[in-house]
Amino acid sequence: MAKVSSSSIVSPQALVGLTPQSGDLSAAAVPGISHFHLANGLEVVVIPDLRAPIVTHMIWYRNGSADDPMAKSGIAHFLEHLMFKGTTKNPLGAFSELVAELGGQENAFTSNDFTAYYQRIAKEHLGKMMELEADRMINLRLTDEVVAPERDVVLEERRMRTDSDPASELNEAVQAALFTRHPYGTPVIGWGHEIEDLGRQDALDYYQRFYTPENAVLIVAGDVIEADVKRLAESTYGMIAARGEAPHRKRPKEPAARTHKLVTLRDEKVEQPSHQRVYLVPSYTTGGKATGEALEVLAHVLGGGPTSILYKALVVDQKIAVAAGSYYWGQALDDTRFFIYAMPSEGVTLEALEEAIDGVMAEVFARGIDEGDLARAKTRLVADAVYSRDNQTELARWYGVALTTGQTVEDIQQWPERIDALSAADIKAAAAKYLDRACSVTGFLLPAA
Amino acid sequence: MAKVSSSSIVSPQALVGLTPQSGDLSAAAVPGISHFHLANGLEVVVIPDLRAPIVTHMIWYRNGSADDPMAKSGIAHFLEHLMFKGTTKNPLGAFSELVAELGGQENAFTSNDFTAYYQRIAKEHLGKMMELEADRMINLRLTDEVVAPERDVVLEERRMRTDSDPASELNEAVQAALFTRHPYGTPVIGWGHEIEDLGRQDALDYYQRFYTPENAVLIVAGDVIEADVKRLAESTYGMIAARGEAPHRKRPKEPAARTHKLVTLRDEKVEQPSHQRVYLVPSYTTGGKATGEALEVLAHVLGGGPTSILYKALVVDQKIAVAAGSYYWGQALDDTRFFIYAMPSEGVTLEALEEAIDGVMAEVFARGIDEGDLARAKTRLVADAVYSRDNQTELARWYGVALTTGQTVEDIQQWPERIDALSAADIKAAAAKYLDRACSVTGFLLPAA
Repeated sequence: MAKVSSSSIVSPQALVGLTPQSGDLSAAAVPGISHFHLANGLEVVVIPDLRAPIVTHMIWYRNGSADDPMAKSGIAHFLEHLMFKGTTKNPLGAFSELVAELGGQENAFTSNDFTAYYQRIAKEHLGKMMELEADRMINLRLTDEVVAPERDVVLEERRMRTDSDPASELNEAVQAALFTRHPYGTPVIGWGHEIEDLGRQDALDYYQRFYTPENAVLIVAGDVIEADVKRLAESTYGMIAARGEAPHRKRPKEPAARTHKLVTLRDEKVEQPSHQRVYLVPSYTTGGKATGEALEVLAHVLGGGPTSILYKALVVDQKIAVAAGSYYWGQALDDTRFFIYAMPSEGVTLEALEEAIDGVMAEVFARGIDEGDLARAKTRLVADAVYSRDNQTELARWYGVALTTGQTVEDIQQWPERIDALSAADIKAAAAKYLDRACSVTGFLLPAA
Repeated sequence: MAKVSSSSIVSPQALVGLTPQSGDLSAAAVPGISHFHLANGLEVVVIPDLRAPIVTHMIWYRNGSADDPMAKSGIAHFLEHLMFKGTTKNPLGAFSELVAELGGQENAFTSNDFTAYYQRIAKEHLGKMMELEADRMINLRLTDEVVAPERDVVLEERRMRTDSDPASELNEAVQAALFTRHPYGTPVIGWGHEIEDLGRQDALDYYQRFYTPENAVLIVAGDVIEADVKRLAESTYGMIAARGEAPHRKRPKEPAARTHKLVTLRDEKVEQPSHQRVYLVPSYTTGGKATGEALEVLAHVLGGGPTSILYKALVVDQKIAVAAGSYYWGQALDDTRFFIYAMPSEGVTLEALEEAIDGVMAEVFARGIDEGDLARAKTRLVADAVYSRDNQTELARWYGVALTTGQTVEDIQQWPERIDALSAADIKAAAAKYLDRACSVTGFLLPAA
């Protein structure tokens, strides 16, 4: 949607920056959650939050940029924009204007594995939101008159955020080098030359294929009870005819990597050089919970803030970096990314920084991690999860991400206990097994030569 | 086909080795060539060669590995194997046995842009060859009983030639890094995990789509006259119903590269390190003839043998390399590859070699090329073309490659004159425009650390 486009993409670009957000999985065990399906296949999660008379109403679709058809990159995100163009019953602008009039907020976002729409609004308007959201699940009306200008909006979004930003350009190239086959190597917003060719029919074909009740998850968090949500959902979303089955998400798999790749971008706009390394690793879904949890904790121990191993070694002790950290993008339908990043101190080369990182990693492989560090990381991970419950929208969002990337409500609920049960040996084993430099991708961002 | 599988793939792997074959385009102007279409759309080229009573009969399809559907890499090559599995009229083995009985030779090969089948045989059997080849253009019979074992043959071919050969593994990774989007980054034989999933229906779907008269080129070279070829072709291939139009070859385009990528493979099987660099450049078809010719001549001046610039600088003068050269893969439907390669002398690092290559290139960019070097390269290119006319099969092959990658018979005929007209300024301009290290891919092959 045009007016919120600055926040509509959830992508590697956003995550590989120097202040990654916590990748933790869960809001911990929220009591009273209910989870059911409507007769047409729509999945529903109700998360009680009685602190204020508001609700967050989200509809998630199990399709993201990784489901863009060949040579149609960007269509998932483009359709997200076009979903604000109106239906016969609710023409262009009607939905957004109503949300604003009622004092609500709305937004939408697209990532590799999902596309989602939400409103946060006074609880008495939940039924109306469902009615309008259900309407645009099946009645979207697109004309060339609205499609063409919106494509220009997306192209401008790409130009502003990627094509004029060397760090974003490097990130795109690093992801493309890591994923030679799998579509996680393609930017969520799409490649510019392919966006240019996206048309009304591409959007409609994609919409017909994926915007179905079987492919959607409704998440309602707030001052509501299950029975009310069910009743409202049945009289809105429930009226949509089932399609028989959810669309199939078929994505090419990645061949086993055997090489290290160093991707270098030099650009006159770069003032501060930076280093990143990305490993292709299992997600919670492909590797199983235990593997995902071990990688999650590893990322926190290794690079989650100023007490982490990388930060202490590179920034505090050796003073060769001004920033350093690591991040695990665990919630993904397919094999995913583990990032290490650092920014060199003045006069330090990226090669020297790379070598120092390898030194730190060699220590981790050889000795594993300290029990004290582990205990702190676990505590902080779970605490983050608890704190983040305080934000109703974030809470709903976690369930949406989990349910659209192959996890279950139970997985989220059990997560804190499972994190607590991890041992230092589990973490050491995960590091040794998955963080192999020989098949990783390194990115160097440098000023013009 | 199983028994010739060792030569059936025409791929980057074959071309990036240390003894690349000449990339020259043409057999120069062969007199008396005729060129026409049958009523069903089949294109026919007849190349007179009256020196011996033999013919080379080739059928070329305008589809190759770059037309493999998503997640079905290897299907073009796999179908090439399966085309030897027989039809109702000519069951498994009948065609090959007949060719052998008649004292002929046969083979087939698959590349990025084409798949081709040929027999070389006494001229009186041309009609029979056409009959059998036309039969398998429409009557291929595939059962799971023949498909499954042949898939194992292809998988074994891949294991033997790629997965156990570090140089091939590196080449695959370099190509994948160069082509992040376009299918030239995918190996012709396919990725192993995708070959494993190819089945009878995949092969039949692909066969139905591409094995049509409109999509084929018949090339007959030898002791034949146009009228006889036409008559025989009409009574065999001509009986196949037209489909209406040639299948559409739609391939994703590559986004503009902004980064340099260094791909490194270390393996204990490596004894001699080697260096390669690949640039993404226009082909004869995408860049136009003048650009293709300039890149062709540039490759020869720069790295075509022991009198070339790179060889003289690195091997003879600086003695830091034991081999060095360059190669342009010009005949391609889409943007293609310009290779530079070198093998370091003992004790020389690949980094030092890389730097020396950049030194040589800087000279070329600054000063251009010597008129004497240019004259020698032009003479040798055209001479190679003339000499290679001596081989009937090679001659036929050039026409097949040209016609399936977007060129015309006239392009081939005019090529020697056009090469002769190139100036040193054309070559210098092509080097400066297309050989930009900042968006190339470098490959390092090294022994285990």
